Amino acid sequence: MAKDMTLLWGSGSAPCWRVMIALEEKNLQGYNHKLLSFDKMEHKSQEVLDINPRGQLPSFKHGDNIVNESYAACFYLESQFKSQGNRLIPDSPAEQALTYQRMFEGLALYEKVGGVIYYEYYVPEEERHDSALKRNKEALVTELKLWEGYLKKLGSGSFVAGKTFSLADVTVFPTVAVLFQFGLSAERYPVLGEYYALLKDRPSIKASWPPHWLENTKGQDTLKEI
Amino acid sequence: MAKDMTLLWGSGSAPCWRVMIALEEKNLQGYNHKLLSFDKMEHKSQEVLDINPRGQLPSFKHGDNIVNESYAACFYLESQFKSQGNRLIPDSPAEQALTYQRMFEGLALYEKVGGVIYYEYYVPEEERHDSALKRNKEALVTELKLWEGYLKKLGSGSFVAGKTFSLADVTVFPTVAVLFQFGLSAERYPVLGEYYALLKDRPSIKASWPPHWLENTKGQDTLKEI
Repeated sequence: MAKDMTLLWGSGSAPCWRVMIALEEKNLQGYNHKLLSFDKMEHKSQEVLDINPRGQLPSFKHGDNIVNESYAACFYLESQFKSQGNRLIPDSPAEQALTYQRMFEGLALYEKVGGVIYYEYYVPEEERHDSALKRNKEALVTELKLWEGYLKKLGSGSFVAGKTFSLADVTVFPTVAVLFQFGLSAERYPVLGEYYALLKDRPSIKASWPPHWLENTKGQDTLKEI
Repeated sequence: MAKDMTLLWGSGSAPCWRVMIALEEKNLQGYNHKLLSFDKMEHKSQEVLDINPRGQLPSFKHGDNIVNESYAACFYLESQFKSQGNRLIPDSPAEQALTYQRMFEGLALYEKVGGVIYYEYYVPEEERHDSALKRNKEALVTELKLWEGYLKKLGSGSFVAGKTFSLADVTVFPTVAVLFQFGLSAERYPVLGEYYALLKDRPSIKASWPPHWLENTKGQDTLKEI
């Protein structure tokens, strides 16, 4: 029981979900957690700011150690609980190289997804340009084709960095789930669709599925035409 | 001698510099390397694309293992050469937590620096807005104050995550150096200025200093008023 850990999180946030999957994979259930609302701006509340001066979720604490950045928390948990639960960084140099490489390419994927689905959220109305959104969409398509190719090369039934589930899946899967929640077509992106289907029922992922997605299983259609 | 390693890099790129510092810290001198020109678009050359489908620098290969993302390469080098050169991830949970946390906050710092100094490079002329650049500058100031506070709290003569040089310095220092190269005032940001002065002559950093900065020691003044 991880009673000395506290996670402040928001539903549907890929960064929060990464940390929750890592906690599950390391058998660290039973941590203290509090679901906060982005809509109500609770990520800017004093409770969050006390742990995280950026006013962002996740905010995560283990004892006195504060590790708010989602990738930082994933590395920390894997390192501190190396022999507990599933090993998330492979030992073999080749598998390890691919795990790290895909993990960090996952940040480019996440950024490009955000450039489309959060465009109106981040760009004030008077600064929006159809040309910019069009370019962001093209960049996302290029990015998605790259990942289709990566997964295809690894072969059917593979995880994102090979035959073993790893930190690359912990960090990349939530973004892939966001893509499909926002309407990405599994017909147009069949390899990503297969990867999504392979992982969505994994216990660590199912246990941490964004609760508000369960209420709205239809999702959105922002990415339908991508 | 690291003859089984190849690095394609560009001068003044913080991501490239991170990998070069990590190589120096791990005593991996003697690797093959090739300096390419961003101005001449050599990062989009076939030579790069063969290793890195994104057409980005750094592009890095160790034997058959390709690790292009700079953070991925840093983790890979530290893990594969753990007992060689300087240890870059501390063992103590508290120091490790802070190392990871600052490392990944370093990505926010880098992004905010880029939002100001590369604004015209990334945003087509017809999409530029004074209001956007002003907001980016304000975000950078907020970010810089955060780091001033972090370093101040650790006390004079500290590295970015404590008393020991770590991967957090490997990844964050190049961004700090970019700030001063682009004119940041050490009078206005004295703690960052002290950190910069502390590290700039460290052998790993001096050995990998961007060559075109040596030719243009005056730098630019983009950030003079920040």
